[in-house]
This record gives sequence, structure tokens and C-alpha cells, in this order.
Amino acid sequence: MKKVGICDTTFARYDMASAAIDEIKKHATNVKIIRYTVPGIKDLPVACKKLIEEEGCDIVMAFGMPGPTKIDKMCAHEASLGLIQAQLMTNTHILEVFVHEDEEVNPKELKLLAERRAREHAQNLIKMLFKPKKMIREAGMGKREGKPDVGPL
Amino acid sequence: MKKVGICDTTFARYDMASAAIDEIKKHATNVKIIRYTVPGIKDLPVACKKLIEEEGCDIVMAFGMPGPTKIDKMCAHEASLGLIQAQLMTNTHILEVFVHEDEEVNPKELKLLAERRAREHAQNLIKMLFKPKKMIREAGMGKREGKPDVGPL
Amino acid sequence: MKKVGICDTTFARYDMASAAIDEIKKHATNVKIIRYTVPGIKDLPVACKKLIEEEGCDIVMAFGMPGPTKIDKMCAHEASLGLIQAQLMTNTHILEVFVHEDEEVNPKELKLLAERRAREHAQNLIKMLFKPKKMIREAGMGKREGKPDVGPL
Amino acid sequence: MKKVGICDTTFARYDMASAAIDEIKKHATNVKIIRYTVPGIKDLPVACKKLIEEEGCDIVMAFGMPGPTKIDKMCAHEASLGLIQAQLMTNTHILEVFVHEDEEVNPKELKLLAERRAREHAQNLIKMLFKPKKMIREAGMGKREGKPDVGPL
Amino acid sequence: MKKVGICDTTFARYDMASAAIDEIKKHATNVKIIRYTVPGIKDLPVACKKLIEEEGCDIVMAFGMPGPTKIDKMCAHEASLGLIQAQLMTNTHILEVFVHEDEEVNPKELKLLAERRAREHAQNLIKMLFKPKKMIREAGMGKREGKPDVGPL
Repeated sequence: MKKVGICDTTFARYDMASAAIDEIKKHATNVKIIRYTVPGIKDLPVACKKLIEEEGCDIVMAFGMPGPTKIDKMCAHEASLGLIQAQLMTNTHILEVFVHEDEEVNPKELKLLAERRAREHAQNLIKMLFKPKKMIREAGMGKREGKPDVGPL
Repeated sequence: MKKVGICDTTFARYDMASAAIDEIKKHATNVKIIRYTVPGIKDLPVACKKLIEEEGCDIVMAFGMPGPTKIDKMCAHEASLGLIQAQLMTNTHILEVFVHEDEEVNPKELKLLAERRAREHAQNLIKMLFKPKKMIREAGMGKREGKPDVGPL
Repeated sequence: MKKVGICDTTFARYDMASAAIDEIKKHATNVKIIRYTVPGIKDLPVACKKLIEEEGCDIVMAFGMPGPTKIDKMCAHEASLGLIQAQLMTNTHILEVFVHEDEEVNPKELKLLAERRAREHAQNLIKMLFKPKKMIREAGMGKREGKPDVGPL
Repeated sequence: MKKVGICDTTFARYDMASAAIDEIKKHATNVKIIRYTVPGIKDLPVACKKLIEEEGCDIVMAFGMPGPTKIDKMCAHEASLGLIQAQLMTNTHILEVFVHEDEEVNPKELKLLAERRAREHAQNLIKMLFKPKKMIREAGMGKREGKPDVGPL
Repeated sequence: MKKVGICDTTFARYDMASAAIDEIKKHATNVKIIRYTVPGIKDLPVACKKLIEEEGCDIVMAFGMPGPTKIDKMCAHEASLGLIQAQLMTNTHILEVFVHEDEEVNPKELKLLAERRAREHAQNLIKMLFKPKKMIREAGMGKREGKPDVGPL
């Protein structure tokens, strides 16, 4: 039985975590999911580390939706650095699933992007946990989570 | 009995810490508050870490009010990275509550923003300490501390 | 017998890892290669650290192909910082082999660049593992992996 | 008896350390001062850490005067991150006292600014070591070291 | 007998390490020098740390010559952060000696700058190892390695 941590924020404007949990449950039965919600993306790194070290999670997903301003972009950068550091301190993967509010102009499209990116990263998680050789076969294939793959050169 | 650290600066132009302490006391009786004031935001990370490791705080709030210049923005960025690192080294949340001086043109508005942001982050702290399930119910809801929530997409 | 870790992504648009593995096998027989594929470049640092600490690799190559947007550039920066940190935590070299999508306009040229850079960094790896004195003789010679050397001043 | 580390550079164009040492001696008799000079600001972080860990300093001041160019600004940023990290690794305050060469156009004004900032941060150090409650009373008061305080909103 | 690590790259276009080694040998007889060459500046941090922890170096010099492009500048920034971190992890000085290719337009001038900066930083190293009080006497004197000193204000 693998434990998966799901960490998200009240700042985000879409519940990506629920989409990911639904996707994980579809593809794996032997998984226990632990969810943890924090205010903003800068709270994610320590929350993910606690999921790994205090809850025993084998892998974690970190969901965030940075706003469009310069300060928001800086927060996303700081959160990303913290998430990488948390992984290095625990030797455990944390899949960062961020959707920037300015990736789409239309709110409906943004919502769809968030839903798809969450699900496709959940599929990555399943592969990383259970089918690492499948990941190798997709190496260099120009995959893009939430958007159409660009494919290999 | 939970211990809450409250860390702020003499550089800031509003006493957000007092607003937060007032808000915490309104919503929780079983909390001990330890306050620590430093000169500027770059002094916050180690001060917060000391509150956690030397004073035994279960959670900390870090208040700062970065100025409007390019150097001020860089200081805020450096402080934020330090706060994330301090959290990762202690497995303890530090809620960063920064109000940038250029978030409002009018000083009265800026003051109101600082007051509200401090209080709303204090409410986050209460939820994180005592009602983590309530946080999960607010996931993806587009919450904005100190400003009107933008809501879900 | 030396162990070499090869870490790459499904985001990349060219399978640089296979080129590097081919090059390593041409020049060294006493090497065991362990390959690990992750979704994106920000997943590389912890994957490389796991190759070192859990698989016992003596050196690792990290392949990535950052996209042309501002966010892509930021991801590359964050990944690079993580790779440096992973090296410092393990006292082990991780050769970062990144090809930025905007280094060439023509996809064919980009492909050639990726192939050549992967192979030339694989040659660096061979030297670092087996012929460190040869590296010293090339010090200050203006070497450029994947592109023509610019030579010494 | 408290030990205070004073760390500065040969790159700086004003001897801020001597001003600070003079100010500290005026306000405290029970203090031992250890001085350490390095070439540039990027050498400050490890020097400060050595003052703390090898010389037993209870607090350190780090003086620097970054030049006006883009590279100089980047060096200052890197040094600041290192100083924050050194503090987190030692649970000890390092007061960063940087004067940017472009803060004043007139060299005389720059000199005065450096002198005043060094002295006012030395006063902060005295408060932090001996009168922490005094710092709390000044929280949110818009203090500015070396320049006129801007005061509370 | 002190051990000095000398770390440089094949990317650089001038052999600064040899200039520094020559300068060190001129001024000190009781020094053992260990040289280590890596491909690029981002390989320097771990190489320097290995020189300190695996070869027992008392101090290290890290030579690099970042190119003129935006990516090159970012690499230099990342390498600098890594070098600072390596110092903090080992309590040992690493003197960063970087010459940016765009510091001079004329290749001859650039070469001269590299030669002089290497030698003047080697003189800093000698002072730091053997005459720390001499460094203190030069504090705040506006020293510039490789270029004319700007002097005190």
C-alpha cells in the first residue's frame, strides 16, 4: 500500500486536488491518499515535507495557481525553490502542479487547463510509483501536461 | 496549550502584530503568544527559527512591510526564501504576512489593508492549528487575505 | 566498475540520454548505466540525488530541454539551483546538460545541437571519471559543448 | 560578557566597522569585539559563520558597500542570501549593514550615510542583545537606519 | 603546511589558475597546491567542496569566465550561490574569481584583466591564510581586484 500526499491552497481558484484524487483512484486501488490544504503556495513546501516525514507519504503532489502580477510570479518562484529543497531533504518526489492564471485569458479555458493538468500529472504519479519503465519509454517525447503534447523534434 | 510566535519589524509602518494578536485571542483561549521584534524583514527568518527551536512555538507569523524600491523588493524576496528554508529546517509553518507599500497609493487604504491582512492570516493560523478540515473545505476557493476574495473560477 | 546515472525528462523533445549512453559505451567498458526518467526538469534534482544515494552512482548526467517562455526559463533556473544543491549534499558531480529550445530556430539544427551536446558532455564524464589530468590540460581553452569551441583568448 | 563579531570588506569605500565598534563601545562595556576583514561581500557569509562557530560570537554585524553595476547588485543579492542561510544554520543573528554606492550621488553624502547606518545598526545590536523589549515598543514605527525614519502610517 | 585548492574550467578562455599558482608560489613556500579542472562554472561548487572535504584544502580559489549572454549570466549567478553554500557547509573560504567576458571589449584587455585579477586574488589568499591583520588594515579602502582600486570615499 503506497501513501500519496495531496497538498493544495485556498488561494487557488480551482480544486485541482479533487480532480487528481479522482484520477488516482481510477488507476490504482492500492493507494492511500492524505490531503492537506494551506493558505498559499509559499506554505506548500513545509506542508509537503510534513506529509512525507510525519505522514509517511511515498510521493506528494503540490497544487498551486499563481496570480498574474509580478509579486505572484515571485511567490511561485520561491515556492518552487522550496519544493525542490523539500525533495532533496527527503529523497522523495513532490510533483509540482502549478497553473498560472495568465496561461489562459478565458476563465473557462483556465478551468479546463487546471483540470487536465491535474489529471495528467496524477497519471505521471501513477507511472512513477508503479511503472517507472513506462516513463523511460516516453523520454524526450515532448509531453506537455494539460496542453497538447508538442512531440519530439 | 499551543505556543504561537509573532515576529515583526521596526521597519514596518504599521503594527500588524498587535492586530493579529488581538484576533488570535478573540478566537482561541488555549494559546500562549511569544512576540519578537527585529529591525528588518531579512532578520525575520532566523528570529522565527529561534521562536520555534528555542521557545518551542508550534507555529509562527512573520510580519513585514517591504518598501516600494527595487532594493526593497529584493529584500522581500530574500526574506521569503529564508522563511521557507526556516520552515523546512523545522517542519513548522511560518505564515508570511507581507504588505508591500505600493499595494495601495493612499496611506489610509494601506493601513486598512495591513490591519485586515494581519487579522485574516491570524484566522488562517487558528484554522491550521485547530480546524485543518475547515481549510480543506476552502481549497481552490480563491481566498485573498486582506482583500476581497476573488472566488473560484 | 563505475556506476553512471542518466536522468532525463518526458518534457524534452529529443532523447539526449540515448545519445549519451551510446557515447559512454563507445569509450568505456567498465561502466554500469542506470537510467531514470521524470516528467520535467524540476523533477531532476531529487531524481539525481536518489540515483547517487539509493543506486550508488559515482556520477550523474541530467538532461533537460527548457522551453522558450519566461516561465520555462525560470524552471530551468530553479532546476539548476537544485542540481547544484544535490551535488553539494552528496559530494558527487551531476553534469547538467540543458539545451534551450530557443538556442536554434531550425528544429533540425536544434536536434543536432542536442545530439552533439549530449555526446560531448558524455566525453567530459569519461574524462572526469577516468582521466582527470586530461581535464586540467584543457583548462582555459574555451571549450563549448555542442557548438564549436571558441578557443583561448 | 557578550562576544560581537564585526565583519567587513576591503572592497567597501568606507570603514563602517570602525564607526560601529565606536558606537558599541559607547553603549556597552561588557562586550568583546572580534573583527574579521575579507575581500568582498560574497566572502562575508562564511566569515560570519566562522565568527559564530569558531570564535563563539553571540551576534555578528556584516558590513558591505555594493557597487552600482548590475553585477554588483547581483553580488549583493547572493551575499544577502548567504547571510540569511548562515543565520539559519547557527540560530544567531547577523545584522546585514549594506550601503549601495548609488544610494547617494554625492560622495560626501554617501560617506555620511555609511557612517550613520553603521552607528544606527550598532544601536540595534545593543537593543537586540540587552533590551529586546525596547525593540518590541518600536515595532511598526517605520524606522530607517542611516536615513530619517519615515514613521508609522 | 597549508593546502590550497585551485579549481577552474575548460569553458574559460584564459588559464587564470596557472597565473594564480605562480603568484602563490612567489609569496609562500609552505603551501601545497591541488588543482582540479571541471567543464563549466556550475561544476565548480561541488568540485571546491570535494577539494575541502576529500583533499583537506584549507582554502580554495574558484576560477570562471562567464560568457556575455543572458543564460551565461544566470549560470554565473547559480554558480556563485553554490560556492557560497559550499563555504557555509564547510566553514572554509572559497575565493570566487570570475571574469565576465563582457567586462572588456578588446580580447587583449580581457586577457590582461583575467591575469591581474587571478594574481591579485592570489595575494588576497596569501593574506587571508597568513596575515589576517593586514586585511583589517585594508578594510574600507575600495580595493578592486584586476582593475585600479577606487580608493576610500
